[in-house]
Amino acid sequence: MEILLKPIGFVRASRAEPLDDHWDQVESAIELDSGTFTEESLQGLDSFSHVEVLFYFDRVQEGKIVTDARRPRGKTEWPKVGIFAQRGKARPNRIGATICQVERVSGLVLHVTGLDAIDGTPVLDLKPVMTGFLPRNPVTEPDWAQEIMAHYW
Amino acid sequence: MEILLKPIGFVRASRAEPLDDHWDQVESAIELDSGTFTEESLQGLDSFSHVEVLFYFDRVQEGKIVTDARRPRGKTEWPKVGIFAQRGKARPNRIGATICQVERVSGLVLHVTGLDAIDGTPVLDLKPVMTGFLPRNPVTEPDWAQEIMAHYW
Repeated sequence: MEILLKPIGFVRASRAEPLDDHWDQVESAIELDSGTFTEESLQGLDSFSHVEVLFYFDRVQEGKIVTDARRPRGKTEWPKVGIFAQRGKARPNRIGATICQVERVSGLVLHVTGLDAIDGTPVLDLKPVMTGFLPRNPVTEPDWAQEIMAHYW
Repeated sequence: MEILLKPIGFVRASRAEPLDDHWDQVESAIELDSGTFTEESLQGLDSFSHVEVLFYFDRVQEGKIVTDARRPRGKTEWPKVGIFAQRGKARPNRIGATICQVERVSGLVLHVTGLDAIDGTPVLDLKPVMTGFLPRNPVTEPDWAQEIMAHYW
């Protein structure tokens, strides 16, 4: 079974290289494909504080994709964990999913902060963050998952 | 530009019809494709309380996809909003993204609760929920987004 997707638009961002950290310094806009979408497509999104952006890590080469386990960022101080127990980009189907802050909507363009995707990244979907879809009981995680985020934003 | 994806596995669930509400009553397992993945692929995922499941709404016909605006669930009491300001399934690229509770990992099978996907749904990715990727400031939303979730779980 194969699934064919088409970008709904692309990221325009001040960062062009996939660095590990300090993503909150990046200004980002998502420009929707004007051949498919209209201003109605984003109507009301600015009544939400946050949006989840699904995007495609198109710069990751197919041969680099990990299907089993590895250490996050290759660091020996963190445990070897499965690709589905980490959020690294060299993953099957190469999809990124990040909750961003909605800054404003302007026609076919959505301005956000906190998007960890570089300039030119294809965008697959935008979903409003509803409190009802956030975790409904306490979130726990291993220590390395906190350490890896120390300088991320 | 076209993007070709392959399911990493499929949902096995007690619910076979896409009903609107009461998803927490559904028991779900995600069975990874044994041709591509190994037990290492899920290694350590059970050290997280929650996982985000990305899946494909394969039962939505292409002709039903909304690209502009509509009322959520077609209800007149809710405002007409853009497809990217709601989480309905008839959306461009037909991707669902839901944060679920991790119950246990057993070989190539991940057991979860709170997955709003019916039996047989193709799964595209699994991501551990890290607190660092949750919203970093208060989440606000319009009233309808709370009302629509009243009986969802």
